[in-house]
Amino acid sequence: MNCNGARLALRAAEAAGVEVCFANPGTTEMEWVTALDEVTGIRAVLCLFEGVATGAADGYGRIAGKPALTLLHLGPGFANGIANLHNARRAGTPVVNLIGDHATWHLAADAPLTSDIESLAAPVSKLVLRTDDAQKLSHDMTTAIAGAKGPPSGVASLIVAQDAAWTPVDDKPHAPPQNIRFSPDHAAVARAAEQLERAGDRGGLLLGGVLGRESLEAAARIAAKLGSRVVVDTFLPRLREGRGVPAFAGLPYFPEQAAEALSDLKTLVIAGTRPPVAFFGYRHMAKSTLAPDDCPSEVLSGLGSDSAPGLVALADALGADAYVPAAEIPLPPAPNGDLDAMSLGLTLARWLPENAILINEAATSGLGWGVHGRAAAPHDVLNLTGGAIGQGIPNAVGAAIAAPQRRVVALQADGSGMYTLQGLWTLAREALDVTVIVCANRAYRILQAELGRSSSTPPGPVALGLTELSGPHLEWTRLAEGMGVPACQVAGCEDLRNALELRSQSSGPYLIEALL
Amino acid sequence: MNCNGARLALRAAEAAGVEVCFANPGTTEMEWVTALDEVTGIRAVLCLFEGVATGAADGYGRIAGKPALTLLHLGPGFANGIANLHNARRAGTPVVNLIGDHATWHLAADAPLTSDIESLAAPVSKLVLRTDDAQKLSHDMTTAIAGAKGPPSGVASLIVAQDAAWTPVDDKPHAPPQNIRFSPDHAAVARAAEQLERAGDRGGLLLGGVLGRESLEAAARIAAKLGSRVVVDTFLPRLREGRGVPAFAGLPYFPEQAAEALSDLKTLVIAGTRPPVAFFGYRHMAKSTLAPDDCPSEVLSGLGSDSAPGLVALADALGADAYVPAAEIPLPPAPNGDLDAMSLGLTLARWLPENAILINEAATSGLGWGVHGRAAAPHDVLNLTGGAIGQGIPNAVGAAIAAPQRRVVALQADGSGMYTLQGLWTLAREALDVTVIVCANRAYRILQAELGRSSSTPPGPVALGLTELSGPHLEWTRLAEGMGVPACQVAGCEDLRNALELRSQSSGPYLIEALL
Repeated sequence: MNCNGARLALRAAEAAGVEVCFANPGTTEMEWVTALDEVTGIRAVLCLFEGVATGAADGYGRIAGKPALTLLHLGPGFANGIANLHNARRAGTPVVNLIGDHATWHLAADAPLTSDIESLAAPVSKLVLRTDDAQKLSHDMTTAIAGAKGPPSGVASLIVAQDAAWTPVDDKPHAPPQNIRFSPDHAAVARAAEQLERAGDRGGLLLGGVLGRESLEAAARIAAKLGSRVVVDTFLPRLREGRGVPAFAGLPYFPEQAAEALSDLKTLVIAGTRPPVAFFGYRHMAKSTLAPDDCPSEVLSGLGSDSAPGLVALADALGADAYVPAAEIPLPPAPNGDLDAMSLGLTLARWLPENAILINEAATSGLGWGVHGRAAAPHDVLNLTGGAIGQGIPNAVGAAIAAPQRRVVALQADGSGMYTLQGLWTLAREALDVTVIVCANRAYRILQAELGRSSSTPPGPVALGLTELSGPHLEWTRLAEGMGVPACQVAGCEDLRNALELRSQSSGPYLIEALL
Repeated sequence: MNCNGARLALRAAEAAGVEVCFANPGTTEMEWVTALDEVTGIRAVLCLFEGVATGAADGYGRIAGKPALTLLHLGPGFANGIANLHNARRAGTPVVNLIGDHATWHLAADAPLTSDIESLAAPVSKLVLRTDDAQKLSHDMTTAIAGAKGPPSGVASLIVAQDAAWTPVDDKPHAPPQNIRFSPDHAAVARAAEQLERAGDRGGLLLGGVLGRESLEAAARIAAKLGSRVVVDTFLPRLREGRGVPAFAGLPYFPEQAAEALSDLKTLVIAGTRPPVAFFGYRHMAKSTLAPDDCPSEVLSGLGSDSAPGLVALADALGADAYVPAAEIPLPPAPNGDLDAMSLGLTLARWLPENAILINEAATSGLGWGVHGRAAAPHDVLNLTGGAIGQGIPNAVGAAIAAPQRRVVALQADGSGMYTLQGLWTLAREALDVTVIVCANRAYRILQAELGRSSSTPPGPVALGLTELSGPHLEWTRLAEGMGVPACQVAGCEDLRNALELRSQSSGPYLIEALL
């Protein structure tokens, strides 16, 4: 088979460690589709909507710690993937978007599918490249992968003219990009140590990004030594939690509660994230920052950089003792009766298998998980990082492909789930071991709460109609079965428990619609 | 009720003739949601995905000839609507996007949902405005509506800071923008007349945009007078067709066939569109333009401007006789046996009620409609204008709301339909009289054709897997029922005919999965 730009670039990606391509191609991507038959080290996964492809790449990147490719069709195809790339951007997830464009000589014609792809890509990408030249394509692919890996890691977008993909080139081996390990700034570690020592129990440590056991145990050592307050971001890209894993308070979602939680801090040391800000602005609290105005902060590492080296160096600099696990708090007994956020979270926490991956896009229905998840078997949680709903099912696709030996559970709000429900089909086609639990409260419940916060009068019928998923309600079991995913509906704690027990004896995709 | 920026702006929209808002709001849009209870002349229609809202506004605008509002949630929410706005842009459809953003003082914090909305909006908008000031908001709303109306008509995007929406303002009446009627350039009409007369039967007339009976009859008069060749764009935003309506050849999709169809022209007069270009570029035909190089063109009116005044003036300038309807060509008898693109198109054409609206996003399965639609009862067809698939079901939502007294049929490819299937729920909630016919060939058939065009060797298993909607196949009846739309599956011409006959006796939404 003769080599061309697309084939050589895919081989360069393979050499750089890329193993998966989440694809929703069109005519301008046909050379890439053909090349995927040649480059057998990269698994092609078809998604029926681009938001599934980008959300899957985000979920994959959070678990694998390296980028997958997406393969997307010009500006409109890329645009359908932006929302989940926004979440990936806010998570610092390594992702490489491969976006086909018209042949170089065809761009000036402004054909129907032409648009300004750079303008669309820039808001969600740390790096945007355009390749018009087949000879440069594999080099640009390597540059995009290196950019996505970082540190800091993030989203790289590579726009490729169709003639750069189809033009013949000589085949040649590729030097993969070097993996670079993030090193913390020793001066910053020294300053942080000094500030925390001075502040004592009014010193704060804010953790964000991908949080594994090493970062959490280092933070626990610091807290044990100084009494520092450790807080984790509200929406973490990935958090290790469960029995025997150090657990810390999450920063509350509403800004008045978040500011209250930080109000007595005299200093704030930050690892893996940035100084905390309000998710939304409100009339009654016209202030974005959440830490006290007179609380200085010291950033050890930002988003997309490993927080562990800085936190370990800080704990060592403080002379903190080795980590001693806290006493385990047992889970309450199995609840009975109606399902609500709390009984759902507890039932799930009691069942969750060891080392599972739980994707939490359950919005208000996920509050019970926040309470009980830390007492479940050790696992990883992926949260909605950018507020762009529709992350959950796609993340599950990607996480399951990154970790085929682990059970994946998507705890999914019904309103959010509708944005990317097409991901259910990919779960079925790839036979992924994913349990989707749809929390069917049949409303945008968080918006109903926000309506109450924004107005002192009760909402009228139009406002209520815009926040209710009723008239008709959604039948998630049929939606799942329509895409080849077996499903059941449960209406109480016992029902859910039974459904989960049956899941313990099966694998592959399954959807449970939990009526709340 | 006290007035605020959002309420006053919605009243300005109501005064300007806006009647519908296709909404998928979030926290930053709560003031607009509340205001929709106050401004009773604007109907709020909830969509469960933004691409449904923008595609509905596109369908509405194509039928109503005036803009609807969309209500979208910051950058990620807007981004989900871009693909269908791309189609609206290529159709020249009037649409006004109302995009909520953070409060002005909260933008600098770069909160999780913050992104560069202007960068996302510019590629699909003829006008992008940002309003930070409650006092200016209703004025900016009027400006956006006037911009969307044109001529030329198109997409206007208004980004509104949340504090501009919530800040109190004095209520005051609004002067609506003036409606401006497009006038053709008389010198252009005179030049076109001279060129067409000189070229005789080698003179061409290319029609695009919204094509009603007046434009088509004027073109028929010119053809009768001079023997000019009349061709219509491949993908028209709206075309009147059926018995007694002048029908012309469509420009072929593949560029070699399109160039062949125009190859002997000596001049080309263009109305409602622009000089024709290839949809995609190909290796074997590295040329974008389709008319001969030595064929000059004269544009009477561009996209988004009414083509009728210029065409009527041209026919009159040529001294063409009054329009005489051509003899009607009867439809062939009802086909039997298996369904394919041809028998499907014929069965549908024999059934279609008078003055229906047919939305054709059937891709390869729509070829039979292209043959038989012109002999059906008179109706309007809306086509996929920008190549961004997922237009059909949303267009049907908007068209049915614009014309509640007309039957709407969405002839929908299965692959394309999956991009915005959430629109089925809005059909059910609003009880819209829409028949969705899903053409279930269970493949991206057009991509399989493109694979054959791009390579001389047969596709490998990976390439085939990326173009097949099988393993598992989609069960559209379940997907529809899961969103409250009754549905059936048909497997042959008789089945389809029976299903359509039953539809004649019922109204409301219905989905027919036609197995091809």
